[in-house]
Amino acid sequence: MNLMSVTESLERLRVKSRVLVDTETCALQNCHGRTLASDVKADINVPPANNSAMDGYALRRQDWQGPDQALEVSQRITAGTPPVPLKAGTAARIFTGAEIPDGADLVVMQESCRQDGQSVWMDTVPGVGANIRPKGQDMAQGATVLKAGHRLRAQDLGLIASLGVARVEVMQRLKVAIVSTGSELVEPGEIAGPGKIYNSNHYMMDAFLVGWGFEVVDLGVVEDDLQTLTRVMTDASRNSDVIITSGGVSVGDEDHVKPVVESLGHIDMWRIAIKPGKPFAYGEVLGTPFLGLPGNPVSALVTLLVIARSFLFDSQGASQYEIAPVQQVALFDKKATQRQEYLRVRSGPSGAEIFPQQSSGVLFSTTWGNGLVVQKPGEEITRGGMVEVIPYTFFD
Amino acid sequence: MNLMSVTESLERLRVKSRVLVDTETCALQNCHGRTLASDVKADINVPPANNSAMDGYALRRQDWQGPDQALEVSQRITAGTPPVPLKAGTAARIFTGAEIPDGADLVVMQESCRQDGQSVWMDTVPGVGANIRPKGQDMAQGATVLKAGHRLRAQDLGLIASLGVARVEVMQRLKVAIVSTGSELVEPGEIAGPGKIYNSNHYMMDAFLVGWGFEVVDLGVVEDDLQTLTRVMTDASRNSDVIITSGGVSVGDEDHVKPVVESLGHIDMWRIAIKPGKPFAYGEVLGTPFLGLPGNPVSALVTLLVIARSFLFDSQGASQYEIAPVQQVALFDKKATQRQEYLRVRSGPSGAEIFPQQSSGVLFSTTWGNGLVVQKPGEEITRGGMVEVIPYTFFD
Repeated sequence: MNLMSVTESLERLRVKSRVLVDTETCALQNCHGRTLASDVKADINVPPANNSAMDGYALRRQDWQGPDQALEVSQRITAGTPPVPLKAGTAARIFTGAEIPDGADLVVMQESCRQDGQSVWMDTVPGVGANIRPKGQDMAQGATVLKAGHRLRAQDLGLIASLGVARVEVMQRLKVAIVSTGSELVEPGEIAGPGKIYNSNHYMMDAFLVGWGFEVVDLGVVEDDLQTLTRVMTDASRNSDVIITSGGVSVGDEDHVKPVVESLGHIDMWRIAIKPGKPFAYGEVLGTPFLGLPGNPVSALVTLLVIARSFLFDSQGASQYEIAPVQQVALFDKKATQRQEYLRVRSGPSGAEIFPQQSSGVLFSTTWGNGLVVQKPGEEITRGGMVEVIPYTFFD
Repeated sequence: MNLMSVTESLERLRVKSRVLVDTETCALQNCHGRTLASDVKADINVPPANNSAMDGYALRRQDWQGPDQALEVSQRITAGTPPVPLKAGTAARIFTGAEIPDGADLVVMQESCRQDGQSVWMDTVPGVGANIRPKGQDMAQGATVLKAGHRLRAQDLGLIASLGVARVEVMQRLKVAIVSTGSELVEPGEIAGPGKIYNSNHYMMDAFLVGWGFEVVDLGVVEDDLQTLTRVMTDASRNSDVIITSGGVSVGDEDHVKPVVESLGHIDMWRIAIKPGKPFAYGEVLGTPFLGLPGNPVSALVTLLVIARSFLFDSQGASQYEIAPVQQVALFDKKATQRQEYLRVRSGPSGAEIFPQQSSGVLFSTTWGNGLVVQKPGEEITRGGMVEVIPYTFFD
């Protein structure tokens, strides 16, 4: 049977994706994790003027002849107060961050100076430009500093604030509906009768999606029957930008997601060469994109991170969300297989250790460790060799 | 002048730290990023009973003699419905996730079977135990699955949900007061007059702290004068668990944080061998721990991530927050220095590229890239050699 490679599945999804949300303006302090809708340009220079990198004295280099020369201290410039032009032949007492007065071309650190009354003596004086942070050193007026599509990190908010910008144009949050199917599922806190298990994918997916800056439309656990699923999927298509289900997409005659999605739009079952991860479905429900993840918790986790995440970021209008794995030493052996495997590992200074039980039903394998080893189809892993590791935090 | 190593500063802080918050109970869906206050144990087996790993037929191995033998299909077991014990000499139609009936010891995948009416024929039958996920395979009843102090990730929430647990005992959010000092600072959105610059540390710190699961007590920009600072710091000590300031802790006579903290408690100026990062202060304000970060944005960022973060997590009761850098190829040369340097880099598949301007005033260096190279004191970095990289996401 021909399986689709992980790369091919990502390419197919990219082709199908388009930006599904509008833009909105958002107060800077609420923009952490949001996606920029337009480039951020510097409307000002940062810093806005030459300023002192330390506490000391500002003067013109040519005004200093040697250690015996006393210079008059003609002004005192603290951060936040504008200076007056420096009187020729004098020095200005100056503090870190304070603006350099016109006429001064360097700052002498105070440790090299001795002030007595209104006079100052300097042991040594550095070259022109010393200890001055030039205007525009951080950002020059007119420069593009962040690009549309960028997901805003903490330091990006600091950068935007330093430009004096308090409101930012961002993409609206992508609305993602999550539906957990399965007549065997009950919610945590309830009693699980015979044959029942607790719904876990829901909580895991919700936390990832919210962390990615999306709005979750929570449709809870849905009985795997035609009528209920049809009603819930119809609702989901009206109230969300993308629908994600977990479970219900295998070939069994107890899985109703496929006929329901088919009746409301279309569905393709993709046999992706990924482990854990089969089966995966892509389709549309009344025009709303639909991703069908497997029901097994580890398969749901891996397909969410490896396959669905890219599609969701594309739909959000985000760019540069690709993940470059890091190289680490394998502390285990693993035979080659035909599928791309995502092995649950715990990596530390000495290398990556594998969790012994790699069954797709064992969610504990994902909480025990801190990342995934990507084992390419046909790749043999041998203890001591290098492997590609994706720490879970890379998916954030 | 003797500088304190980064390691020593972290050890000193660890000795001074203690857990500053109580515990509380929190609904599972609100626990992402929270710190567990007690161990999570499995009160049930997961899965609760042996179940089928695929759609097929369950039978007892000894009841099957060969491909010509027809077995009666004596029951149909879907996920979520409890089975009855298997009638001897028969098979049960079974679906993925459904409970294995007593008396069956394997599942034959449906692709190897042919059913006609109430009879089924099998081409081959695997060994005992095949395609059965044993009860407790994921988690055995009584096992400790997550430890107190663990910060809850998305997959941890899934794991806890799978145990049927809907409410979790977590540490209360640590309350962190942030104070930006400096008479030169104005807020984004306002007009920056001559000599003024925009407050950026505040936005950056707020986003990191909230991301770490803390509650930020926002005290805004405070004039660097004795009276105002005394009032604000007194308020902060009453309303927070830890106070963080940025700026105002250098030796200049325009810096009033030191005398104010001294008058309300005590302060130690630490000369840490870190770059960017000097100066750093530790103290107490009316019994509340105080961390004084530098005012330069990159110095504030680096000391927040490298020094303050550990102290805050210790105060939160969190454990295992330590970061193990990854190894990458350096795409640059950098001379050895006496301090531990945190170089702003952009790392990709071919290695880590350095931002050309490493001045502590250049915040753009942190947004241009995706991590920090740790250059140890005395370490020479040469192009093509290996360096230690900390991707920013590791600090999350």
